[in-house]
Amino acid sequence: MRYKLTIMYDGTAYHGWQRQREGVATVQYEVEKALGNITECYTAVHASGRTDEGVHALGQVAHFDSDKQLDGYKYLNALNYYLPKDIRIIECEQVGSDFHARKMAKRKTYVYRVLDSAVANPLLTNRVQCTLSRDRLDDEAMKAGVQYIVGTHDFSAFKSEGSSATTFTRTIFEASVVRDGDIIEISMTGDGFLYNMVRIIVGVLIKIGKGQPPHAMKDILESGVRKAEWQMAQPQGLYLKSVVYKSSQD
Amino acid sequence: MRYKLTIMYDGTAYHGWQRQREGVATVQYEVEKALGNITECYTAVHASGRTDEGVHALGQVAHFDSDKQLDGYKYLNALNYYLPKDIRIIECEQVGSDFHARKMAKRKTYVYRVLDSAVANPLLTNRVQCTLSRDRLDDEAMKAGVQYIVGTHDFSAFKSEGSSATTFTRTIFEASVVRDGDIIEISMTGDGFLYNMVRIIVGVLIKIGKGQPPHAMKDILESGVRKAEWQMAQPQGLYLKSVVYKSSQD
Repeated sequence: MRYKLTIMYDGTAYHGWQRQREGVATVQYEVEKALGNITECYTAVHASGRTDEGVHALGQVAHFDSDKQLDGYKYLNALNYYLPKDIRIIECEQVGSDFHARKMAKRKTYVYRVLDSAVANPLLTNRVQCTLSRDRLDDEAMKAGVQYIVGTHDFSAFKSEGSSATTFTRTIFEASVVRDGDIIEISMTGDGFLYNMVRIIVGVLIKIGKGQPPHAMKDILESGVRKAEWQMAQPQGLYLKSVVYKSSQD
Repeated sequence: MRYKLTIMYDGTAYHGWQRQREGVATVQYEVEKALGNITECYTAVHASGRTDEGVHALGQVAHFDSDKQLDGYKYLNALNYYLPKDIRIIECEQVGSDFHARKMAKRKTYVYRVLDSAVANPLLTNRVQCTLSRDRLDDEAMKAGVQYIVGTHDFSAFKSEGSSATTFTRTIFEASVVRDGDIIEISMTGDGFLYNMVRIIVGVLIKIGKGQPPHAMKDILESGVRKAEWQMAQPQGLYLKSVVYKSSQD
């Protein structure tokens, strides 16, 4: 029996999603350990993709196979009983054996939260990147800049070394920059993202917010070369918001 | 010279605002310690009022007197340098010697956040009270119920023992219940609040959200007697949002 999990987590305490050598805290390790307590055997959990150290998830999706046939809500409650409080299963449903959390993903949405404030917000520690500047970001320029990434492009200029990707063309369906008081939320929906792609793009957007022309995004994209001196945004502002599948509804 | 501070804090690690015996972590202790590093002498900090253990502030207000005449922004930066990260000074300005953070407060606004969800949100740990129920709260009934507290009333039914108050009449200028997805935000603005008054009122509102008639709020208010078997809401959902003074703008 195959089950689909939707998982929310605070990534602060973890070295990302992916299981590593023993003794390294990762989200995958915790979910597999909790599941093992229920299925009484090692049960692999396959996610839609990795998230990096410190990155959060509002709706990571994963699947697992088990002979232990339980109602989805029973799995949800049992997993949440065993899991640490910074990881919660928010949905669990039985799915067909053709479902695959990574291969069947049609689109993913990431959001990035910037706190545009001279002073950090103690209630948002590890939840945002704070500008720590009295100069406000120009969110209108950021809105103009982010539009250049929408569409199908070679995103070679927006990837980190160490990626296993062999093709660099991705399609961004939607991208937006929305200010709500001191918080600027950047959202991107695409068919896939290269390693660190969202954080590199946000790094460029912050530069644009600080005075670079919006056109800088287009110039970098077309150059195919990463501007390494432009820092990528910190991991703690990044959230994997949702993953949509071929047969599911948005 | 008198200075007015606006302070934001995550109350999770503190036994409330008010200084206690040595060794007990409180927000007042931390602010006075940081200030002492700047003024090089013990400098008392007087807040608009106490907050309880675990309660947060988005805009607590306090004042202090010092012979060390610095620009407000210099005090702000120096205080934030010495303060722990869960306490931030968000504004500091020099004020007249007639300003008093408690005595001159004209109105205070508290907000309370309820997460109306069967599963806790790991990104909101210590930030909300979670219902942990699959039954959704009836926020329309809660909206009707909260309106009964607006106006000038004897709030004896909504206070805890241990209060030093000798009069129980307070005026609530505005109160609202607003749902945004899973979050229900309850907001109250008044000229003052009795000990635990907001949390006791929210406890009644949650009961109304679970099926008690909205009129229960009026009945309890008029009875003048606390319904002790109705639990007050947990501290971690409560935020002191703002304090407005006679001469300042909202």
